[in-house]
Amino acid sequence: MTIRVTVWNENVHEQKNRLVASVYPEGIHGTIAEALNEDPAIRATTATLQEPEHGLTDDRLAQTDVLFWWGHCAHGEVADHVVDRVCNAVWSGMGLVFLHSAHFSKPFKRLMGSPCNLTWREAGERERLWITAPNHPITAGLSGHFELEHEEMYGEPFGVPEPLETVFVSWFAGGEVFRSGLTYRRGAGNIFYFRPGHETYPTYFDANVRRVMVNAAHWAANPAARIADPSAAPNVPVHEALEPIEERGPRLHEAGEAGYR
Amino acid sequence: MTIRVTVWNENVHEQKNRLVASVYPEGIHGTIAEALNEDPAIRATTATLQEPEHGLTDDRLAQTDVLFWWGHCAHGEVADHVVDRVCNAVWSGMGLVFLHSAHFSKPFKRLMGSPCNLTWREAGERERLWITAPNHPITAGLSGHFELEHEEMYGEPFGVPEPLETVFVSWFAGGEVFRSGLTYRRGAGNIFYFRPGHETYPTYFDANVRRVMVNAAHWAANPAARIADPSAAPNVPVHEALEPIEERGPRLHEAGEAGYR
Amino acid sequence: MTIRVTVWNENVHEQKNRLVASVYPEGIHGTIAEALNEDPAIRATTATLQEPEHGLTDDRLAQTDVLFWWGHCAHGEVADHVVDRVCNAVWSGMGLVFLHSAHFSKPFKRLMGSPCNLTWREAGERERLWITAPNHPITAGLSGHFELEHEEMYGEPFGVPEPLETVFVSWFAGGEVFRSGLTYRRGAGNIFYFRPGHETYPTYFDANVRRVMVNAAHWAANPAARIADPSAAPNVPVHEALEPIEERGPRLHEAGEAGYR
Amino acid sequence: MTIRVTVWNENVHEQKNRLVASVYPEGIHGTIAEALNEDPAIRATTATLQEPEHGLTDDRLAQTDVLFWWGHCAHGEVADHVVDRVCNAVWSGMGLVFLHSAHFSKPFKRLMGSPCNLTWREAGERERLWITAPNHPITAGLSGHFELEHEEMYGEPFGVPEPLETVFVSWFAGGEVFRSGLTYRRGAGNIFYFRPGHETYPTYFDANVRRVMVNAAHWAANPAARIADPSAAPNVPVHEALEPIEERGPRLHEAGEAGYR
Repeated sequence: MTIRVTVWNENVHEQKNRLVASVYPEGIHGTIAEALNEDPAIRATTATLQEPEHGLTDDRLAQTDVLFWWGHCAHGEVADHVVDRVCNAVWSGMGLVFLHSAHFSKPFKRLMGSPCNLTWREAGERERLWITAPNHPITAGLSGHFELEHEEMYGEPFGVPEPLETVFVSWFAGGEVFRSGLTYRRGAGNIFYFRPGHETYPTYFDANVRRVMVNAAHWAANPAARIADPSAAPNVPVHEALEPIEERGPRLHEAGEAGYR
Repeated sequence: MTIRVTVWNENVHEQKNRLVASVYPEGIHGTIAEALNEDPAIRATTATLQEPEHGLTDDRLAQTDVLFWWGHCAHGEVADHVVDRVCNAVWSGMGLVFLHSAHFSKPFKRLMGSPCNLTWREAGERERLWITAPNHPITAGLSGHFELEHEEMYGEPFGVPEPLETVFVSWFAGGEVFRSGLTYRRGAGNIFYFRPGHETYPTYFDANVRRVMVNAAHWAANPAARIADPSAAPNVPVHEALEPIEERGPRLHEAGEAGYR
Repeated sequence: MTIRVTVWNENVHEQKNRLVASVYPEGIHGTIAEALNEDPAIRATTATLQEPEHGLTDDRLAQTDVLFWWGHCAHGEVADHVVDRVCNAVWSGMGLVFLHSAHFSKPFKRLMGSPCNLTWREAGERERLWITAPNHPITAGLSGHFELEHEEMYGEPFGVPEPLETVFVSWFAGGEVFRSGLTYRRGAGNIFYFRPGHETYPTYFDANVRRVMVNAAHWAANPAARIADPSAAPNVPVHEALEPIEERGPRLHEAGEAGYR
Repeated sequence: MTIRVTVWNENVHEQKNRLVASVYPEGIHGTIAEALNEDPAIRATTATLQEPEHGLTDDRLAQTDVLFWWGHCAHGEVADHVVDRVCNAVWSGMGLVFLHSAHFSKPFKRLMGSPCNLTWREAGERERLWITAPNHPITAGLSGHFELEHEEMYGEPFGVPEPLETVFVSWFAGGEVFRSGLTYRRGAGNIFYFRPGHETYPTYFDANVRRVMVNAAHWAANPAARIADPSAAPNVPVHEALEPIEERGPRLHEAGEAGYR
């Protein structure tokens, strides 16, 4: 079964900064999609902030098994109703892979329920990612560790909830560490945060990073049919109770009334 | 050290429904505060939706070690900027105990990052809460299980993230189960969800429920000083790096520039 | 890729108790293997306590992607060196599905590191299993809940560590609840505990139970190559350090010496 | 309430190695106990491998709120029945803090259910411990990070189950990282693993390390009364069921019979 991936990028640095444009002439989204499409089991397309609805209509999300998200300087420009839509899609079963500075994106903060903050330094220093969950599907084909010679530093504390699994922890030349690969589940949706990918370095051309992204697409894809309304809170009336009970005592709701939200 | 608790209640049913008013003549908030104040180590006060800023100013939250939250029919009337403030206080270290229908409150949904939905039935049926984490601080003084003869049913699936700990699981006469006591941590804040407390039953007069609430106040209180800005993402400049590094390669940010949010 | 399953059963009740023999004429292991083999992607065989090495040689385990374990009255007869071998296989990547009374088996207790105790009653009462993790791979093809009209009761507290995920919670007619589907990871091995399956009831002929077991086999299988020595603790000598360091200060170990265990 | 701590040490290096003896003239156990006793709320005593029953009788464990464990070259000499006793005490509510090379001690491996392996290098290199759980009780009085100028390196992957909380992650000069502060709960017992403390360096004289150990003693102490038999699996007979049920169908056990273990 083909995994349908949509790679979303704010696509701003590439338009405004000659350096970023030269590193990613196809845009960060283009490079990531190209990396994913090297796996014949994946069909990756792209969407950007500038498109109507940021390219993320209900229909597009319904056709997306896994969304990748890259954002940085334009987090605030992402429309709240699109964020709602993305969260809803995750809860219904869409996978979502957040990359690098997406730690401060609206959907990540919304899905984590926490500040998602960290410390940072842009010095092109060495990052070494250590696998902490050997033989995890996201680390398939890798072993031990891999290095990125030039990366932005992200340091702990990383303001996220305890993850389901810690898959990578990074070492930085300047002395910091960072939990750089974390899994979560929200509703029926699998979420992976993966740290690398500063816009001024060619990180998304790195073979190990590309491998992790391909693995993450496979891991995050949930083959189950989407949940139609992941926030539904159905009333189960007394006469439909699975065990015979009689209504007792006072009640607030009229029969057939919907619950409060 | 005294634990300063603020019991927040939307306080709407008590004003509009004669039955609820007769069960909780002091308001649900009043009864809960009274229960907590039976412990000399706790000083509980109340706040309600109707007060300016819903009674939850920055100053009030700064003076609150643990907030209790009860809401049901007026979730939508809670101002978003107050919700932001409450979440920020949690991240900085305030404890937060969500009761019953607060599962659909704005702060709970925001802090969980998930739908927080469930199934429900208002039939006054028997609920039996089983302790699943023996000797957990929240279960102090209890053992095995306790019963509430008349409660609203909440059924699984409960749309929340995997908790840190599952403390209670409920059995319902009509055939459902529910994870009715769950712990979380968001930033420096301890969060406890506790299921019982439908407005038409005298649940908050029950000795076991009161005991759990007192225990939860103790458990959720974080004696550490509050984190001033829990979302701060400080830059660590090259010359302040803990290990000697030299800046290498291109960069996007000017020296001293703040990060994007 | 075919998933190679070995279904292990102590196979004692079937030999000694006419009732159990009549319910499971092929043995519990035979029935489970037959259920799994209905999925063309699975090739299930069996092994029992009575075989040399209980049928679980190193070679057999190396050829097993997922082991299923059923035991009850003969836990104490399982040889400790076989238990070591099974745990080692799990750590190296073999999946392991523990069924019902295997909660007290040696491998389960060893892998959990906890008492694994519970309460129980053999009264043929109704069990209703509620899905608490919608769209989890282990629940594929199921929705909401399913019932077993006659089952042994297992009640909380269940003496296990907090799981990675709670997949099922059971309701029992006599008033108890139980976390009846739990996932864990130990080393590279995926572990699933699944509650139903008392030997005097035809539980393993139930379509929903069989579906869960097939799903669990798929979920637990780890396609990665086995880790050769999952307990290896290699020394990384100074001259092979990834960053240039000089040895400083005193040391206890001679160069090339192995660590203590 | 005074927290009664027993600091256990194999006490072998101190007897055989002049260097270790000179760093820890009172033994590692003596130094740790002295550090803990600086807190008036703690009363720490010591026990060693050489004492009868290794100093860990049932009575001694019953009088211990929190056990600290340091071992390295003599893991194999710890008697299995003492290990059973220690695990049982943890399950009944005793706290247990494992230090450094205790990662390979029998009780730690037993309680984790996993290999507990890692990589290592004895080069006196710099370790920097980063707090990943700000305002956690175990980090009280600390902020950000602290350094140990000379330590043994431990590197990932650390073969332990996903923890309840990751409290510290270490950076090493030679290029590795390690999750150096992890919490677990097994039965009613709180467990903390804390990495630093190689025998040839004066780590347990470091003010920050001592602070963490004091904090850990407070965190791990469970004020609840010990569970008498933490492995008990009581039968709940039909006539004592909480809901009226009738026995149905066949059963294996005679009335009043104990369950199998």
